[in-house]
Amino acid sequence: MSSVYSEISGGVTAPEGFLAGSRYCGIKASNPDRPDMAMIYSPQPTVAAGTFTTNRVKAAPVRVSAAHLRGDDVRAIIANAGNANACTGVGGIETAKRMTRKAASALGLKERQVLVCSTGRIGVPLPIEKMEGTIGELSVSLKRDGSKAAAEAIMTSDTFAKEVAVEFQIAGKNVRIGGIAKGAGMIDPNMATMLCFVTTDALIEKAELQQALSVSVENSFNRITVDGDMSTNDTVLMLANGAAGNETLRAGSPDFEVFQRALDHVTITLARMIVEDGEGVTKFVEVCVNGAASFSDARRAAEAIAKSTLVKCAWFGGDPNWGRIMDAIGYSGARMREELVDVYYDGLIAVKGGVASATPFERLQQAVAQKRFRVSVDLHLGTAEYMVFTTDLSTDYVLLNMGE
Amino acid sequence: MSSVYSEISGGVTAPEGFLAGSRYCGIKASNPDRPDMAMIYSPQPTVAAGTFTTNRVKAAPVRVSAAHLRGDDVRAIIANAGNANACTGVGGIETAKRMTRKAASALGLKERQVLVCSTGRIGVPLPIEKMEGTIGELSVSLKRDGSKAAAEAIMTSDTFAKEVAVEFQIAGKNVRIGGIAKGAGMIDPNMATMLCFVTTDALIEKAELQQALSVSVENSFNRITVDGDMSTNDTVLMLANGAAGNETLRAGSPDFEVFQRALDHVTITLARMIVEDGEGVTKFVEVCVNGAASFSDARRAAEAIAKSTLVKCAWFGGDPNWGRIMDAIGYSGARMREELVDVYYDGLIAVKGGVASATPFERLQQAVAQKRFRVSVDLHLGTAEYMVFTTDLSTDYVLLNMGE
Repeated sequence: MSSVYSEISGGVTAPEGFLAGSRYCGIKASNPDRPDMAMIYSPQPTVAAGTFTTNRVKAAPVRVSAAHLRGDDVRAIIANAGNANACTGVGGIETAKRMTRKAASALGLKERQVLVCSTGRIGVPLPIEKMEGTIGELSVSLKRDGSKAAAEAIMTSDTFAKEVAVEFQIAGKNVRIGGIAKGAGMIDPNMATMLCFVTTDALIEKAELQQALSVSVENSFNRITVDGDMSTNDTVLMLANGAAGNETLRAGSPDFEVFQRALDHVTITLARMIVEDGEGVTKFVEVCVNGAASFSDARRAAEAIAKSTLVKCAWFGGDPNWGRIMDAIGYSGARMREELVDVYYDGLIAVKGGVASATPFERLQQAVAQKRFRVSVDLHLGTAEYMVFTTDLSTDYVLLNMGE
Repeated sequence: MSSVYSEISGGVTAPEGFLAGSRYCGIKASNPDRPDMAMIYSPQPTVAAGTFTTNRVKAAPVRVSAAHLRGDDVRAIIANAGNANACTGVGGIETAKRMTRKAASALGLKERQVLVCSTGRIGVPLPIEKMEGTIGELSVSLKRDGSKAAAEAIMTSDTFAKEVAVEFQIAGKNVRIGGIAKGAGMIDPNMATMLCFVTTDALIEKAELQQALSVSVENSFNRITVDGDMSTNDTVLMLANGAAGNETLRAGSPDFEVFQRALDHVTITLARMIVEDGEGVTKFVEVCVNGAASFSDARRAAEAIAKSTLVKCAWFGGDPNWGRIMDAIGYSGARMREELVDVYYDGLIAVKGGVASATPFERLQQAVAQKRFRVSVDLHLGTAEYMVFTTDLSTDYVLLNMGE
């Protein structure tokens, strides 16, 4: 199926009517040149959707944003880097609310029309006075081309700002979806989180927007793993303001399918960027399991391979170690019969029917020597399949995460 | 409760009537001075018990030993290092059987009276002819003090041989239990496995021996984690020959309790040695979760902490990073309420009611700077508890496991 969308520049401000920007307020004392607060704003009414970490330890902004999302006409997102506002107790909730309250008063909104995200150090109170002093300035500095600034302000250990946007047609109207994200890497001892903000000028109702976003997150951010640790702050938020003037998108319609595919492109692109920019990453690996007896078996097997410390160390060393892959499938819980399993490195068969193939070791080594490669597994038990993006595990990863 | 047993020397040959030994047959071409085959033998009738990896990919010797354990009067264990005989198909099963057949003919036994274990490289056929040539020699070289030789022969990346034995009294009779083990480390690209062989001269019936061993493994080897990867070859085998002349031990009796505690000491001591000798390990950490709503909640939380890549990297760096511990508990699946959780480093409270305690950071750093420390978590939801032994994750671990 050919693309019905094309990539454009502009990130979250590519869609009509959205403004964004950033400011430095001093959460990260170390680098005053690097902004640490971002804001995204729609002067027009929107509908909003979101998905949040399933970790039972939820950062304060996650709790506040989830509550605000239940209301209508959310207009703005305020976010900071450098401090996660997680494990901060009742005081943390109050601080997150103060962020939304200050942004709301600066933008002429109600508190519940603002969503809030934080990423950074866990367990340290936010310097809310400094932040409140900056939020007013930030809100008057927002621009129609402010996406890059916002993407940069939410970076922690990310080495590049992550932005993407697409344009497509719905019954003759140009519609845009744009997104920014920050990575699943760590920097400083306590940081970890992925954040993603998506905007669209499509006209769509709230339930349909949530449905499309949930599907899209399942196919993108829920399929990436760097270190297997799930953050307390992971958040994906989406705002739709209807500025494109299309007819309201209806779930199940061909137009909705076009919208879904365009949205998937945005989220999958950002998810891939997060993995590629993971800390200490030297290899980007697609793990595909097919022929599984069920979807859940395919997922278990793929995730066990993608999260195996031993498999990831072998990739770092350029070792096409299929024994560790077989081992991971075996303990994954997926139904499997050892004697049926085939394993491929970039299309080269490494394991045939559970035992070593005739492929020369040197050819498998060449596949794993690449910066990007694919590992495919066929369980030969059914038709279910699953795919995950993952990385190697390097000495640099350990060094970056061993603390101060 | 005071110890009813005392440690003695002699490992698996400390119990009356057991012989052991080792020989070099050439599986590891690199080091002819280091034996690569071990044998343990009881000339007297025995009962046997065993537990095996739950990985669905099972090495050939695991399948053969599990079948032979169903019979009576097992007398010998033959084991090799350097090659796991895993992912070797039907040919691998035949090779494992040939090992038992050769050992049986050398010892005057039936094939089914011999158990077999292999550890080492996955996916490479065993050099069975070389091995058969050596098994005869090995069987006539067995000694009453051969435990150390056997313990050394099953080492792979282990840096020391792992042996322990205890003596205790059952109604006036001296009874002994001894064990040897090899570690959960990796060396060469494809190696991974823990093996443990235990002997006793207690008189006990097969069902009771299996019960005692299963309980003991649950409290020891099932509570250790180095890298979270479960091997295809993990095996614990136990032989009891009744040479101590005690009255048959009955499940539920006070004597059986004494036996169980002595056996637990043997398996827990070997399990701790395996963790301490794990590859690239610089820290030995006990993770204790208590106050859980259920046993399974306690286990999930403890295992999530013990397996978290980020937590383990922080320990390597001497960073008392409690945010990552809270995060791991949160995604573990254990029932928890963030605001009730307390976390301690060696008795120093780091987290009180889900937020940072008043303990100075430097004091927590001192705790984590030690080679051994304990992390305790109180979930304050119930009375269930669980404990796991684990390690840090070092740059050396990655270097040792990145392949050739």
